[in-house]
Amino acid sequence: MDNELTMEVTIQTLLELLEAKKYSRARDEILKNNTVIIAEILEEIIENLGIEKAVILFRTFPKDVSVEVFAYLPIDDQIEIISVITDKEIQHIIDELAFDDMIDVLEELPANVVSKILSRTPKEKRKLINTFLNYPETSAGSLMTPDYISLKRDMTVEEALNHIKEVGMARETVYTCYVKDAERKLVGIVSLRNLVISDSNIKVEEMMHEDMIYVSVLDDQEYVSDLFKKYGFLAIPVVDNEERLVGIITFDDILDVIDEETTEDFHKMAGVAVSTEEYLDMSVWKHVKNRLPWLFVLMVALMITGFIITKFETILSQVIVLVAYLPLLMGTGGNSGAQSSTLIIRSLAIGDVVLKDAAKVLWKEVRVSFMIGFLLSLLNFAKIFLLDGEGPLIALTVCASMLTVIMIAKIIGGLLPMAAKKIGIDPALMASPMITSLTDMISVVTYFALATLILGI
Amino acid sequence: MDNELTMEVTIQTLLELLEAKKYSRARDEILKNNTVIIAEILEEIIENLGIEKAVILFRTFPKDVSVEVFAYLPIDDQIEIISVITDKEIQHIIDELAFDDMIDVLEELPANVVSKILSRTPKEKRKLINTFLNYPETSAGSLMTPDYISLKRDMTVEEALNHIKEVGMARETVYTCYVKDAERKLVGIVSLRNLVISDSNIKVEEMMHEDMIYVSVLDDQEYVSDLFKKYGFLAIPVVDNEERLVGIITFDDILDVIDEETTEDFHKMAGVAVSTEEYLDMSVWKHVKNRLPWLFVLMVALMITGFIITKFETILSQVIVLVAYLPLLMGTGGNSGAQSSTLIIRSLAIGDVVLKDAAKVLWKEVRVSFMIGFLLSLLNFAKIFLLDGEGPLIALTVCASMLTVIMIAKIIGGLLPMAAKKIGIDPALMASPMITSLTDMISVVTYFALATLILGI
Repeated sequence: MDNELTMEVTIQTLLELLEAKKYSRARDEILKNNTVIIAEILEEIIENLGIEKAVILFRTFPKDVSVEVFAYLPIDDQIEIISVITDKEIQHIIDELAFDDMIDVLEELPANVVSKILSRTPKEKRKLINTFLNYPETSAGSLMTPDYISLKRDMTVEEALNHIKEVGMARETVYTCYVKDAERKLVGIVSLRNLVISDSNIKVEEMMHEDMIYVSVLDDQEYVSDLFKKYGFLAIPVVDNEERLVGIITFDDILDVIDEETTEDFHKMAGVAVSTEEYLDMSVWKHVKNRLPWLFVLMVALMITGFIITKFETILSQVIVLVAYLPLLMGTGGNSGAQSSTLIIRSLAIGDVVLKDAAKVLWKEVRVSFMIGFLLSLLNFAKIFLLDGEGPLIALTVCASMLTVIMIAKIIGGLLPMAAKKIGIDPALMASPMITSLTDMISVVTYFALATLILGI
Repeated sequence: MDNELTMEVTIQTLLELLEAKKYSRARDEILKNNTVIIAEILEEIIENLGIEKAVILFRTFPKDVSVEVFAYLPIDDQIEIISVITDKEIQHIIDELAFDDMIDVLEELPANVVSKILSRTPKEKRKLINTFLNYPETSAGSLMTPDYISLKRDMTVEEALNHIKEVGMARETVYTCYVKDAERKLVGIVSLRNLVISDSNIKVEEMMHEDMIYVSVLDDQEYVSDLFKKYGFLAIPVVDNEERLVGIITFDDILDVIDEETTEDFHKMAGVAVSTEEYLDMSVWKHVKNRLPWLFVLMVALMITGFIITKFETILSQVIVLVAYLPLLMGTGGNSGAQSSTLIIRSLAIGDVVLKDAAKVLWKEVRVSFMIGFLLSLLNFAKIFLLDGEGPLIALTVCASMLTVIMIAKIIGGLLPMAAKKIGIDPALMASPMITSLTDMISVVTYFALATLILGI
């Protein structure tokens, strides 16, 4: 809140300065902030005043600041800037960006721009860039950077520290160093902490950890982020098919991955196609395209529910009051099922529940749903009988249905995500919309079946 | 998957060895793994064979391994172990744990055990522990550790490095070092990277960053984790009311916070009381207590919907077929609203959408919902008129209702989370169950109002 407020003031002043074309005053104001904040402000300027004014300001930044700010901008703003600055300026930014940030930008640029940039890049680097551009978007390969510290096993601590001193500034991290053999295979890991606290003539091979954990270029980013969470790594090495070290992934990139994966789960759980684009940046048509398919699928389920109801029209027309309790039943069934499915989806995601716990989950949900169903039914019986003044048989029909529906909903809600995982479907898809549509159907069938039985229609 | 499988094999063998009381064989087997995996296996042993057998094995571990394994165990297993081992063993573990891990354990132990432990702790440390125990559970204070590297501004790089060499092993991180003045106020930050690559006779004050970002002991953990995400910090300093440096928070603790906050959002969005206990560890009664309140609140809303229906019984009894389309309308309305609210809740959480974007969100949802509503209504008109063989007026009633309901649902779904945030309620509460119950009400009213109008009943 506070943060938002402070920014607000700065931005307002800045926008006014820029509209009055006082660029050098604006430049002085904006440069008082750190580069993360400058990037945030620039984002606002692009949004409010358009890319041209923003770029005029951007060009007045010192060269090193402009590259850092560029790196912190969201990808769509980066592309916008690249589309209006000169080739020479593009080249400068691309050359100075950290390798992994550069790959992120290149991945989003049109092919002709990329090839223009690559044509001016030295051959060795160009080859490397092409390899990186070919890794699948959510793979370890697309997250990694080749800018790591590499040591040899027969170096002494002093030699290792001198090497770090020499190249350390250009590396993504210096805190974990990687020991490679002649075939470029990863043979050990040394932390800078250990190097700094060790005697200077000890050999690297005497102190390195050999039982290190690494990932392969094609491993999924979710697997990589799970390892970071489990071990609290600063960085993890990435190897290719021949077990050669090709890059490292650092923890700051993992923070983005975790956010991305969470967003993905949220979207799936709401029946929206997964997308990395920001809500406001996405076109109306894209929003429609992302939301329509699931609404349609769920609608088909709801149509079936409607069809079932038509089969019971005779009961309904005789006891029209039953309709009044239909939303209560369907709604409570849906809500109960959604609770259980969300709990299990999240527990599966963080590993609190695994597939072989299915029987335990079933037994837990059976007891929980019986207690909840019993309590809510009792309450409803009292309300329908005493308050609404309906007959005891109607009250009994509603309450028996409610108990049944809550139990079925919670059991399905608990087990369906596990079943999905078992057959390789993302459990997050078995969330509220899906469960609700299922329990709607179950509610209607249960309700009318019990009505036929109890009311003897 | 692979990972789970490998563990499975080891655990099966281990469980058999333990049941056959072959403890030293079991010990040799388990110690082949790293401490994170050992902790995971021990967790399984506690679950399958009970705490006694697990502790017999735990006691055979080398002292340093046992403390590390203990640190990686979930808090409830830690408490179980403490409840069966001797006071001397407890003391050893508590003494050797990293300060922040120790605080986590002490926070969960019964008061009498804590005071027994504290009575044997040196006075200075005891005072510090008591201060830490008093910070609110989700505050920066409760996350931090006092084990950081502290430097003086007039030290040279060489002196700083020697100091790190001396105390570095006992510190949570050595990669960011903190410069304090005589009043223990934080005056600057130096990274180990900069120390290592700088000339040895440069003064710390010449190279330190003075415009550092820090948090206060009482800041909420969510605010802290947002800063980590924004800046990619390795660690962040924590100051008290007098701006004195009292501790640091490292990124590995933030990974846990992020998971915790996400789980909290998931639970809120499903109408389940927030809890940090694992699903399977929680008693049936606790599950009931966590789920019942929201189900009850939502039920009241559903009762109102039912009450509204009774007001329209005359229409219903005349055109009983209208009931068949009620689930379709309510369900599609709920699903549409849930999509929008989830998108906005998540966008608010990661900062893609802020409160002043309300008008943009409204305009986006108006257009998206009109398109979706129009397409789905068209489809339904065709289905009801051609397939179900109902009259055009019935089809028109359903479809006009559907367009209206989808539009209202999506607009409410988009704006309600923002309104909640505005008045200080967690937007995550305005998710599917809440939105669905609201749209149910709106669907019923819209449907019957349009039926009265169009069918002229």
